[in-house]
Amino acid sequence: MSAFADIPTIKYEGPQSDNPLAFRWYNPDELVEGKTMKEHLRFSIVYWHTFRGTGADPFGPGTAVRPWDDGSDSVENAQNRARVAFELFEKLQAPYYAFHDRDVAPEGSSLAESNKIFDAVADVLEEEQKRSGVKLLWGTANMFSNPRFMHGAATTCNADVFAYAAAQVKKAMEVTHRLGGENYVFWGGREGYQNLYNTDMKRELDHLGKFFHMAVDYAKKIGFTGQFLIEPKPKEPTKHQYDSDAAACMNFLRSYGLEDHFKLNLETNHATLAGHTMMHEIDYAGIQNALGSIDANTGDMLLGWDTDQFGTDYYLTTQTMYYILKHGGLGSGGVNFDAKVRRESFEPIDLFYAHIGSMDAYAKGLKIAAAIRADKALCGFVAKRYASFDEGIGAKIESGSVGFAELEAYMLEKGDAATNVSGRQEMLENLVNKYVDRV
Amino acid sequence: MSAFADIPTIKYEGPQSDNPLAFRWYNPDELVEGKTMKEHLRFSIVYWHTFRGTGADPFGPGTAVRPWDDGSDSVENAQNRARVAFELFEKLQAPYYAFHDRDVAPEGSSLAESNKIFDAVADVLEEEQKRSGVKLLWGTANMFSNPRFMHGAATTCNADVFAYAAAQVKKAMEVTHRLGGENYVFWGGREGYQNLYNTDMKRELDHLGKFFHMAVDYAKKIGFTGQFLIEPKPKEPTKHQYDSDAAACMNFLRSYGLEDHFKLNLETNHATLAGHTMMHEIDYAGIQNALGSIDANTGDMLLGWDTDQFGTDYYLTTQTMYYILKHGGLGSGGVNFDAKVRRESFEPIDLFYAHIGSMDAYAKGLKIAAAIRADKALCGFVAKRYASFDEGIGAKIESGSVGFAELEAYMLEKGDAATNVSGRQEMLENLVNKYVDRV
Amino acid sequence: MSAFADIPTIKYEGPQSDNPLAFRWYNPDELVEGKTMKEHLRFSIVYWHTFRGTGADPFGPGTAVRPWDDGSDSVENAQNRARVAFELFEKLQAPYYAFHDRDVAPEGSSLAESNKIFDAVADVLEEEQKRSGVKLLWGTANMFSNPRFMHGAATTCNADVFAYAAAQVKKAMEVTHRLGGENYVFWGGREGYQNLYNTDMKRELDHLGKFFHMAVDYAKKIGFTGQFLIEPKPKEPTKHQYDSDAAACMNFLRSYGLEDHFKLNLETNHATLAGHTMMHEIDYAGIQNALGSIDANTGDMLLGWDTDQFGTDYYLTTQTMYYILKHGGLGSGGVNFDAKVRRESFEPIDLFYAHIGSMDAYAKGLKIAAAIRADKALCGFVAKRYASFDEGIGAKIESGSVGFAELEAYMLEKGDAATNVSGRQEMLENLVNKYVDRV
Amino acid sequence: MSAFADIPTIKYEGPQSDNPLAFRWYNPDELVEGKTMKEHLRFSIVYWHTFRGTGADPFGPGTAVRPWDDGSDSVENAQNRARVAFELFEKLQAPYYAFHDRDVAPEGSSLAESNKIFDAVADVLEEEQKRSGVKLLWGTANMFSNPRFMHGAATTCNADVFAYAAAQVKKAMEVTHRLGGENYVFWGGREGYQNLYNTDMKRELDHLGKFFHMAVDYAKKIGFTGQFLIEPKPKEPTKHQYDSDAAACMNFLRSYGLEDHFKLNLETNHATLAGHTMMHEIDYAGIQNALGSIDANTGDMLLGWDTDQFGTDYYLTTQTMYYILKHGGLGSGGVNFDAKVRRESFEPIDLFYAHIGSMDAYAKGLKIAAAIRADKALCGFVAKRYASFDEGIGAKIESGSVGFAELEAYMLEKGDAATNVSGRQEMLENLVNKYVDRV
Repeated sequence: MSAFADIPTIKYEGPQSDNPLAFRWYNPDELVEGKTMKEHLRFSIVYWHTFRGTGADPFGPGTAVRPWDDGSDSVENAQNRARVAFELFEKLQAPYYAFHDRDVAPEGSSLAESNKIFDAVADVLEEEQKRSGVKLLWGTANMFSNPRFMHGAATTCNADVFAYAAAQVKKAMEVTHRLGGENYVFWGGREGYQNLYNTDMKRELDHLGKFFHMAVDYAKKIGFTGQFLIEPKPKEPTKHQYDSDAAACMNFLRSYGLEDHFKLNLETNHATLAGHTMMHEIDYAGIQNALGSIDANTGDMLLGWDTDQFGTDYYLTTQTMYYILKHGGLGSGGVNFDAKVRRESFEPIDLFYAHIGSMDAYAKGLKIAAAIRADKALCGFVAKRYASFDEGIGAKIESGSVGFAELEAYMLEKGDAATNVSGRQEMLENLVNKYVDRV
Repeated sequence: MSAFADIPTIKYEGPQSDNPLAFRWYNPDELVEGKTMKEHLRFSIVYWHTFRGTGADPFGPGTAVRPWDDGSDSVENAQNRARVAFELFEKLQAPYYAFHDRDVAPEGSSLAESNKIFDAVADVLEEEQKRSGVKLLWGTANMFSNPRFMHGAATTCNADVFAYAAAQVKKAMEVTHRLGGENYVFWGGREGYQNLYNTDMKRELDHLGKFFHMAVDYAKKIGFTGQFLIEPKPKEPTKHQYDSDAAACMNFLRSYGLEDHFKLNLETNHATLAGHTMMHEIDYAGIQNALGSIDANTGDMLLGWDTDQFGTDYYLTTQTMYYILKHGGLGSGGVNFDAKVRRESFEPIDLFYAHIGSMDAYAKGLKIAAAIRADKALCGFVAKRYASFDEGIGAKIESGSVGFAELEAYMLEKGDAATNVSGRQEMLENLVNKYVDRV
Repeated sequence: MSAFADIPTIKYEGPQSDNPLAFRWYNPDELVEGKTMKEHLRFSIVYWHTFRGTGADPFGPGTAVRPWDDGSDSVENAQNRARVAFELFEKLQAPYYAFHDRDVAPEGSSLAESNKIFDAVADVLEEEQKRSGVKLLWGTANMFSNPRFMHGAATTCNADVFAYAAAQVKKAMEVTHRLGGENYVFWGGREGYQNLYNTDMKRELDHLGKFFHMAVDYAKKIGFTGQFLIEPKPKEPTKHQYDSDAAACMNFLRSYGLEDHFKLNLETNHATLAGHTMMHEIDYAGIQNALGSIDANTGDMLLGWDTDQFGTDYYLTTQTMYYILKHGGLGSGGVNFDAKVRRESFEPIDLFYAHIGSMDAYAKGLKIAAAIRADKALCGFVAKRYASFDEGIGAKIESGSVGFAELEAYMLEKGDAATNVSGRQEMLENLVNKYVDRV
Repeated sequence: MSAFADIPTIKYEGPQSDNPLAFRWYNPDELVEGKTMKEHLRFSIVYWHTFRGTGADPFGPGTAVRPWDDGSDSVENAQNRARVAFELFEKLQAPYYAFHDRDVAPEGSSLAESNKIFDAVADVLEEEQKRSGVKLLWGTANMFSNPRFMHGAATTCNADVFAYAAAQVKKAMEVTHRLGGENYVFWGGREGYQNLYNTDMKRELDHLGKFFHMAVDYAKKIGFTGQFLIEPKPKEPTKHQYDSDAAACMNFLRSYGLEDHFKLNLETNHATLAGHTMMHEIDYAGIQNALGSIDANTGDMLLGWDTDQFGTDYYLTTQTMYYILKHGGLGSGGVNFDAKVRRESFEPIDLFYAHIGSMDAYAKGLKIAAAIRADKALCGFVAKRYASFDEGIGAKIESGSVGFAELEAYMLEKGDAATNVSGRQEMLENLVNKYVDRV
């Protein structure tokens, strides 16, 4: 009784394959820089878009055809859907998945009932994890859909809602712990404001800080040692989200003494909505020792909202993997496909095409990045570019042995600085193309 | 021998005046919330746009007609220009001005010569300050125009350039100190990158941190107690500026242990280029105890570059002044017109129209903001909105006496959160219009 | 049995009123330029946002509390809702309303049944129009929500869907005709593409041209003489809408010989998403003799999607009304509030606050615009600015009596052009503020 | 006496070459779809960025090191520069170049003198064209840099400036004719407005229409049969350019009866600033029978101004070449590199790296596009997708044999439309990657 009876387990067939239901680049056990592709990429499939997405948009209801789903909010439907999900995870050879509480299990008429339903579905998830070997990359709580969260969850103006959110995260963390989740993610869906006129930003941020400290305390209490992650996004659904980008997240964490407990879950489309490239956000997080995981998707650069498309652009995947490798990999994080098929791609098989294409694109990106690194094609250029700081006055600057007075004296004597050399942007862009060509 | 012989000193004539060379709202000695408008607004005129701007843009050279300027780089021309500048400051009743080293004084053929020229012009500035009573809001060093800074100043890959920048800031700080400057500003014109492929972001940021520590040390050494300010901007001239917004600046400062020594100089057009409203940036800085000063201008929201227009929108000026008042005013900062007349507004009198209109707009904004505050029209609404945190479970959350377990117990018993109330965004927008109407 | 028993009919109380349920500026019978405000503004309330909007967004379901609505798709509920709508129209003193077929009446299980339901609701609309005197500004057909339209309506790749759309517009036009609708609007909700890879743009545009010709033919057949309007929008829900802005619409109309049969329905938020100011689009349409009607709302300039907020900005409303007056008014069009309350403004009274504030803002905008016109404050400046074309070489250019050869001869003799004068942008911005202050 | 003595003529060495001064993809005589690459691509190098660009930006003066240029405005320097330019054209194997009048020749103190200087430089250009075989793709007049054009050229408010512009275009057209230019381009640098308050848009557009008619008349007079092209751009340097995108240009041309005389010169970075993909603009122009030529460059999608970078993205070049091939090629147009090296890429060799990389990227894009076409991989899918219009009710719609009444009857009988099929966006994106991989 398979939901995807006609679809085979997706296998690697190599770049020359014309089979749209095969991998051309993702070869799980292929070694790259001494680890397998599987270990590098740690692909994860999201429950929400893939199993709860309907294709609805602000101008029309859903279109998705999902024959296994009876459309009801029954526990049985939720449990059955979970089994279908694992069938897809396995056919796509995805080692991980991720969920929100309300994706996997419907909400009941009270918190107690919701928790009970959640447990009943978690039983199936646990069973399926054991059966299949697919693991939980992270769990989280949906605290943005239900109308009670209209003014925020941890940053609501309604103290009861804060309490509800706390209870919901407590439960989601417990279930994540039970299922061996390697991380727990906070995306502050409605943690922000629509209008500053009615908002006490300081009080809201103080509450958010308190909420996260409660989470840290509770994790310790139950022995959950997974990594906490927060996810930057600048806008949507609120006009202004507090966690607007990696820097804003880090400053928040530092302001509330939380920087040792949280890392970042970076999403491509969120980065670009905030005006940054994804590689910028990864490099920034890496520098801040806060690279946790990535939500792999892409936006449409001509559209101003979160399109959550599947990324297939080799430049994006190369840059992403290059900076992940540079910072030592994703640790307990993964390449999590927080992406959805278009409203017009409404058939089940589109879920396969979409994941296969993007898995291949990240796999090829990994190979290109590794090839660039093997030749030190970029990092060698960079090292040489800053060589003036390795000796002489540059080394003194770095060691802290000179100050303004000494540097002025140095320059007064010299008269002017040594000549610059070209930054060679165009040459480096060509060089990257060479590696795109050759892998 | 006046440069503006036909232009009178601009006086307050009240809202009914039809004189385009009079203030209709800016009445320097009028009391608002117990201080004079002059004390609240601390208007400052910038030397660069007003006296060195030519109207050039990427598609054509300058257009500005400036009869007092012989176009040469002579010291005499620079000194003469300084005297003209003070004539304009006085006619506009501006209590402050601001400059970069290379605006007021041309660069010489060596650092030593540049410093000498700078001193010669500073003599005139000092003389004019004494004569007129106009004071220096802040000084700064231009470390972005000269080609030596193409790869950055403190974040250059060329150690000599770092040394040159250090020497330049040392001198600019000394001159600022000598002239009684109340602040010293860093705008990292080329502190960012054009391309991540050739950039070592971590090394560059480390250098920037070191540079600022040197500045702090040197200020202490010479007894300069003015406030240090850094100025957020997300892009332009570089593809990505390190100080992209208030949050990025604060995270940088915290990362390098500099947060006690620096505040922020917020610019309207930079805020919007970064995706934030100006009021957001002010409120954020205020919450972080880092509200230093503002660069008062506006962008064109349909254009994607720094247009530096004079702001005349009452909504902008009301929001700006409201959040400044909320956070206790600007301290040693000011409302600094970092704005330029359009390329087509090339006549000297346009400089007057531009400043008068914007000074009036901020003055009216101040009055509107004060009227809203007098009635507690917004803050009263806000206080009531968060009242659930003043007692009961909300108060326990704020005091830290409850954690996830207690909050879950509370909510399991209650079943669901108390009902939300409308955020009333539209009503509040109407309410602000009422105050715009009535002031 | 009133849905809004506690809410009075909204009356004009003048600018000094503190009553949030009164007009401060909209005084229906007040004369402006010889016509009443009511005649100038022709306010219209939209059925979709106001009576079918739920507050849902891509991250959560609806929040709106609408006690009169039982949430069902029954004809009775639809009819009851229609009566409530007219109560609101009357209390807001709105002379017009507008609808889509599927807003006022639910869709049945077949086209025939849908038509029958539509008729049943139209009976009530007709009755209510007669009772209240509220008139139909325009009708239209929703051809974007139902999944059948996922690939477009007139521009679908599925010929049956084109046929369905034709049938639906036929019926909507008939009902609009029956109800005395003064215009019929086409907004091409899904007339565009998500991806050019799978799209035959030429074939789709040819189909669209054919569809509009069929509409023109059918209107003639049934004697419908209302104005046809198309509504520009650049993106959302499709990645690229064919009717991207006023210019694209006009070029489409000209390309298919339709320019005599259609005018434009311009929407503020669509204009800004396309990179234009609303005043630009109005002026452009006016120049093209195609100014039909406006959808009065506003976007958030920092957000990249269609927020459809209620406009309260006096600069926007002044500019809008100024250019409408300049081009002789809206004819059979109106100021139609295609705007929705925020998701957090979920109470019925928010519908009133929202409309009152925006009606007031357009009324004040009208008064400001009229005051500027009375003084020829802008148009007088403009006329003078182009005076060189009123005589001499300029007049010859305009009359067509000279060509390149004559103009070269003229200029060779003269050597260079007469000096330019300042464009005075800043002075004109100040001048507009003066009128904002004084009305 | 070569300016580029150390740089060899760039040769094709194939994809495996590691020589940064060789082509890896551009093989001029290689056949693609029955024509040589050279014939398809018709590469052209621009005089302005390549030989007059200095690297100046709004925050700093030029950086470019150009040893052959003495920096003076002398005729000799201009003539010498022209010879250097042809050396570069030849070394890059570029068959075409393009210029503005004021790029190749400095402006004199009067129109007459400017014309004389222009002729003197044109002598050298002619000589060099003959010597080298490099041809002129197009000429144009710079009517945006000189301050006289601050308010526009053909759309100025100053009639003399219109006359000056007419004289300048007359001369530029004559020189283009003399040099065998295959096209003449109009880019309306300052044809737009900074502020609608001071602008009579209709009068300006009427003048522009008149100007273009004069150009058409004059071309006829002198027997110039090259193609006239106008170049869309939405903004910069003006706040709003009249020729904002392909659709706006076409509507302008149609409005003034010029559509038979002009085609479009489409620029990538202008397309994206206007909110369109380059492939959209090409397809749109092709459909309008107005595809003239392209300005091949790229923008930075996170920056809001015209960066004019060299394009190296294979997706961009594939899409560009695919739609050019689809519409039958560029005719008398070409792939013109309206692109500039970054300010930090200031050495002469960067000019070579930049052009080589982008020429290679377009060459590879051509090959990928041709491979997709050979397999009918996209167009075959598209043809099948619209097959319902090839017969039955769809064929009747296309033939015009049915109207609303017949279509309603058809659908009333059928009840609902036939089911849609997936648009397969993700599958098609994967498919394009397959071709990127294999070429």
